[in-house]
Amino acid sequence: MTNIRRAFVTGAAGFIGSNLVDRLLRDGVRVVGWDNFSTGQRRFLTGALQNGDFDLVQGDNLDLDGLTRAMEGCDVVFHLAANADVRFGTDHPRRDLDQNTIATWNVLEAARNNGVEKFAFSSTGSIYGEPDVFPTPEDAPFPVQTSLYGASKLAAEGMVEAYCEGFGLQGFVFRFVSILGERYTHGHVFDFYHQLQQHPDRLRVLGNGRQRKSYLYVGDCVNAILAAIERADGRVNRFNLGTDHYCEVNDSIGWICETLGVQPEIEYAGGERGWIGDSPFIFLDTTRIRSLGWEPTLDIRQGVVRTVEYLRDNEWVFDVRAA
Amino acid sequence: MTNIRRAFVTGAAGFIGSNLVDRLLRDGVRVVGWDNFSTGQRRFLTGALQNGDFDLVQGDNLDLDGLTRAMEGCDVVFHLAANADVRFGTDHPRRDLDQNTIATWNVLEAARNNGVEKFAFSSTGSIYGEPDVFPTPEDAPFPVQTSLYGASKLAAEGMVEAYCEGFGLQGFVFRFVSILGERYTHGHVFDFYHQLQQHPDRLRVLGNGRQRKSYLYVGDCVNAILAAIERADGRVNRFNLGTDHYCEVNDSIGWICETLGVQPEIEYAGGERGWIGDSPFIFLDTTRIRSLGWEPTLDIRQGVVRTVEYLRDNEWVFDVRAA
Repeated sequence: MTNIRRAFVTGAAGFIGSNLVDRLLRDGVRVVGWDNFSTGQRRFLTGALQNGDFDLVQGDNLDLDGLTRAMEGCDVVFHLAANADVRFGTDHPRRDLDQNTIATWNVLEAARNNGVEKFAFSSTGSIYGEPDVFPTPEDAPFPVQTSLYGASKLAAEGMVEAYCEGFGLQGFVFRFVSILGERYTHGHVFDFYHQLQQHPDRLRVLGNGRQRKSYLYVGDCVNAILAAIERADGRVNRFNLGTDHYCEVNDSIGWICETLGVQPEIEYAGGERGWIGDSPFIFLDTTRIRSLGWEPTLDIRQGVVRTVEYLRDNEWVFDVRAA
Repeated sequence: MTNIRRAFVTGAAGFIGSNLVDRLLRDGVRVVGWDNFSTGQRRFLTGALQNGDFDLVQGDNLDLDGLTRAMEGCDVVFHLAANADVRFGTDHPRRDLDQNTIATWNVLEAARNNGVEKFAFSSTGSIYGEPDVFPTPEDAPFPVQTSLYGASKLAAEGMVEAYCEGFGLQGFVFRFVSILGERYTHGHVFDFYHQLQQHPDRLRVLGNGRQRKSYLYVGDCVNAILAAIERADGRVNRFNLGTDHYCEVNDSIGWICETLGVQPEIEYAGGERGWIGDSPFIFLDTTRIRSLGWEPTLDIRQGVVRTVEYLRDNEWVFDVRAA
């Protein structure tokens, strides 16, 4: 990745962000990390902070001036900071607008102010809503949004594309399935682990456990992002990121329990969806990113197990999230 | 339309808004008109203001409290207010975010606060970007945004859909081609008329004149909106609105000049697109709205001629816009 002069990473202290920062530094890239530490963890940057090529700036994406100053000299932006809470969107309907839509506009505007060349954005498979086509390709039929989170990411995608068209940046939009692995701090594996930590004999599950989901290991996610940045040459490049498989929530529960050696009684809340806006089936077509030569190194089961092992070795993340 | 208790119309003093207000009042519906008069014209509401069923409230969509108060007692919202300027988006990149995206969130939130049942939103065919399929259907392949205007409307559509899913409103999204007719105050007919008023012997045209566009008469647009509100029963209902034909900008120039009795020399700026983000070809599939029994009463030529005649009888609109 010697073709990046200096990278700017928003959400640098987050789950995916900190993994990307470590990888960029390992590749010899100078990195400016930006985070407001609303959910990011300084501990995730312990290694990075010992590297002379890394600068950490604490700041919020709603502060355009601060963003513009911090981004000075950067040629590639990885915009990963977001409200990643799909589930409680309707409890605070302004949050996705602020933290995902308006925030992305600010990061784009700062990028334009600094003459940034490449802009990578972490979107989500949730923007496909409840698609009719599986695996769902990037050019699936125009979706209907089913969550405020999905809507805010769709909005951000559109702005990224319009900025590329209007101002000459090159754009990379990544639609993730759920990402798993080291530093994972929210989502179903986190919730299930947390429950089993407190009461190993029972597990409450939202929905009927039959929701089908796809997961990708964070290391594979970072590999894919960098492969695309390096090799894709369109003005706007959109990639689904996921594995070629899916599992049921019940499969995942089995792997988690097996790894932890527990056999809880499982209580299902019932219903096809875990919550309003939950997609009962997410499975993305990854032909496009694979055509660049990328492929995942871990399958879904391995990703789940790796995540459970990480959580077992790092139970401090539960204390921090609860605080 | 006796099934509407009280309608709330944003952009009530605008081109489409004021035509909708007049139609609703004619149908015996009580109407609250909301406008910040940034581009709306009080003169467009001369008739409405003499009707006891009409209340006009001056306010801005960025004022959520004001919106919520003004919307009290309304069961149907027609959200038409917008920055409709596609062309100069890159000159002030924050404008579409504020006036289209954030504004729509506010109108949605006010609707939720007031227990509104139906929410109609004026989107645009521009959200299809540069599609591969013509005529373009509502479920065209997931488009890439080519303008900040299109991106802001896409963002708003997504929020409307997520609000309907999350909070139980019924949503109506209308993707317009360019609308023409009485009270039309921006767009190519307006610009060409204005030029020919100043110098009837020459006309400057952006692009090569070969851009293919579709137009719809405002009366037909209002008819379609009301037909959908009355007859469509999905949670989220999306409709393209347009005619079954398209024309070249050059055709339109011919009709305008013929109506005005002028024969200008035409200077083309050249290029496939009139400006950055301009779509060289817009032509929407209107099968879905036609299936509700709606059809246009004027074709494109008749719509253009009607518009030129309106402008000739109301040249004051040029003075106001220039002021």
